[in-house]
Amino acid sequence: MTNVTDGPCPSALIAAQAVEEERLWRRHIEMARHGGTPAGGVNRPAFSEADAQARRRLVDWAQDIGLTASSDAIGNLFLRREGSDGDLAPVMTGSHLDSQPTGGKFDGTYGVLAGLEALEAIARSGIETRHPLEVVVWVNEEGSRFQPGTMGSGIFTGEMDLAAVLKVVDATGIAVADALPHYLAATPGLPQHSSAYPPAAFLEAHIEQGPLLEAEGHSVGVVTHVQGLRWFAIEVTGEAAHAGTTPEALRRDAFMAAHDLVAALNERLHDPEDVLRFTIGRFEVSPGSPNTIPAKVFFTIDLRHPDNRVLTRLTKQIEEICAVGPRGCSVSCATTENQPATVFHDRVTACLGRWAAALQLAHSSMVSGAGHDAMHLARVCPSGMIFVPCQAGISHNEAESATAADLAAGARLLAAALVDLAGG
Amino acid sequence: MTNVTDGPCPSALIAAQAVEEERLWRRHIEMARHGGTPAGGVNRPAFSEADAQARRRLVDWAQDIGLTASSDAIGNLFLRREGSDGDLAPVMTGSHLDSQPTGGKFDGTYGVLAGLEALEAIARSGIETRHPLEVVVWVNEEGSRFQPGTMGSGIFTGEMDLAAVLKVVDATGIAVADALPHYLAATPGLPQHSSAYPPAAFLEAHIEQGPLLEAEGHSVGVVTHVQGLRWFAIEVTGEAAHAGTTPEALRRDAFMAAHDLVAALNERLHDPEDVLRFTIGRFEVSPGSPNTIPAKVFFTIDLRHPDNRVLTRLTKQIEEICAVGPRGCSVSCATTENQPATVFHDRVTACLGRWAAALQLAHSSMVSGAGHDAMHLARVCPSGMIFVPCQAGISHNEAESATAADLAAGARLLAAALVDLAGG
Repeated sequence: MTNVTDGPCPSALIAAQAVEEERLWRRHIEMARHGGTPAGGVNRPAFSEADAQARRRLVDWAQDIGLTASSDAIGNLFLRREGSDGDLAPVMTGSHLDSQPTGGKFDGTYGVLAGLEALEAIARSGIETRHPLEVVVWVNEEGSRFQPGTMGSGIFTGEMDLAAVLKVVDATGIAVADALPHYLAATPGLPQHSSAYPPAAFLEAHIEQGPLLEAEGHSVGVVTHVQGLRWFAIEVTGEAAHAGTTPEALRRDAFMAAHDLVAALNERLHDPEDVLRFTIGRFEVSPGSPNTIPAKVFFTIDLRHPDNRVLTRLTKQIEEICAVGPRGCSVSCATTENQPATVFHDRVTACLGRWAAALQLAHSSMVSGAGHDAMHLARVCPSGMIFVPCQAGISHNEAESATAADLAAGARLLAAALVDLAGG
Repeated sequence: MTNVTDGPCPSALIAAQAVEEERLWRRHIEMARHGGTPAGGVNRPAFSEADAQARRRLVDWAQDIGLTASSDAIGNLFLRREGSDGDLAPVMTGSHLDSQPTGGKFDGTYGVLAGLEALEAIARSGIETRHPLEVVVWVNEEGSRFQPGTMGSGIFTGEMDLAAVLKVVDATGIAVADALPHYLAATPGLPQHSSAYPPAAFLEAHIEQGPLLEAEGHSVGVVTHVQGLRWFAIEVTGEAAHAGTTPEALRRDAFMAAHDLVAALNERLHDPEDVLRFTIGRFEVSPGSPNTIPAKVFFTIDLRHPDNRVLTRLTKQIEEICAVGPRGCSVSCATTENQPATVFHDRVTACLGRWAAALQLAHSSMVSGAGHDAMHLARVCPSGMIFVPCQAGISHNEAESATAADLAAGARLLAAALVDLAGG
């Protein structure tokens, strides 16, 4: 990566100003036709016909701008604008086009279309960068059809194994290896992607999927971290008994024991600064009859924090709380998921912050609560993310919504940062 | 009812001594063949073939002892031994023969067979009573096939309407009116029951279905009350949101709000004397995904106490707690069931206590946590109940178990009390 310059970079400013809000918005509306739902959302499973047609549409737009399309073995799509030094690794930007079954128009798609818009703005402004620029579509970010998600970026960065991923099957028994040829057939004849690896840098624009930017009235967020995540599965085992005939002293009530555990967790996990995310989303009581004392409770903990040390410390506290086994019940506690936090590269976040200020965009530094392809890229190259507000923080939902002005603001910041990072 | 005598009643003692433990136990084993399950339990739905055959078996035994069988319109079965004054209302005892789908050998059956054993002991001892004695089988106590339960005793006492009950259908669409003729056909030609009404007294022997007698090492319990019962349905409504992106300050977490409510309920409903029964048996969280903040919680409260005034006071407190609506959530609270407490007749419980002492049976005064046919009878005549221990308090379960010695002890107390109440 070229060192970020300290002084102003006129070409970056020019590129940002060349971003067209109306064109960016129109492409979102057109893209939403592929897998569009009656409720105004998008159902575009990874490697589906709708996903293939969205890819086809994007390649058409890219070729109109003069970008060169290529693909890799898992179907990641790269749309390249050459730099003045063809041997340098590309500065990349992008996200994904697949969606949740009842997803929205903006999750993933925005990062791809903002990248296209930035490259079009740069191209139309006649700006030359030293590094090549590439817009990338990572396949199967959502993981709702084929698990796990972030397959495309996981394979690109070597964190997932291609052979293993090709064998993954969906709920109907179709393997990735079966779905992939049909998906690729929508854009025939693409050459194999062959840029220098690793990329010089990676930027991903995305809707926030949370309520903070909207609450603050800010147009863009500079993401400094993706929170680390741990999942726990807690099982409390007591004894079923008759609600009418069993006095409290003789009960082994799994519900009340779980209630005691949650009270202890609430006390120990309370964060006055409200950075920690602590959620109990599943809580199942059995046998679940009004007049039977519960024999068993199963519940989950979803714990997130940008600092891995905090997560490790709190994991210990959760295990300590569960070791007690209140009300004569036994308690088991298992960690079922452990994704370390991602810290984005200082120089990338500094560059984004500087350009947000230079472009006079109301902005915040923030932490991503959700996972993104940029987490994988951050392990192989300097990376960063730009967030834009989405209405009421609603996402993974057909009602997902964002304003054309905010989408354009994020694309302007992206265009400026790309030119800066690529040596404009 | 004849006034209970203060002095000893030699014939009552003789009747008690004539109770045969082995005969009573053998009849339980034989009766358990009707609807017997491989796991050693009983599946004998109301008005089923197994229920009809159990009735047939009982009538055969009763006729061998010289009792006269009769039936009423809903199929309640009465097995009568005449008294010296044929115009007096009978002193009745009994329970039910139907079972839960995976029920045990003793629930209900014991009260019927203990009654039969008591009358056999009285008959074999040549004791004459002033009042007639009747063993009764109340139909459909369990209510697991046709709802509600305690149909037979409810109709007998006028608390339920025969025409309405005949229209009740089971899960397969069969009405009580359709099932009844087949049930009655197993015991053809029984005359219509025509005793003086209301009965002079009613006694019901039953397994405890709770752990107290076993814990105390007592053979019999004299039941003074059946607890009153109230059910509440509580619904807490918040808002679903992303577990990773939504800070606590912006959450409307229905699970955590419900947790706060339960904490408040636990504090207000704690009874240091452990008489109150407070159970949360159903607690359902939706959407129930580990990484989604719960939008809704539904939970039930089962509240029981022998004093109706206490239940009324606590109902008010529950409504007050639910009126608060913590963490920005809304809360609704509905009373879905309200069965007032039953207080058994002083003279009956005094009689049972006196005879338990005279027979040197280790005994306790106690409250029934479950509902029984005796609740209905208590509204029309002096009534009472005798409990015997069941292993670990387990009931409504194929593993239900009781000892032959305890069953006989309860039958001895029943025989003595029947002679006493009937003027032996």
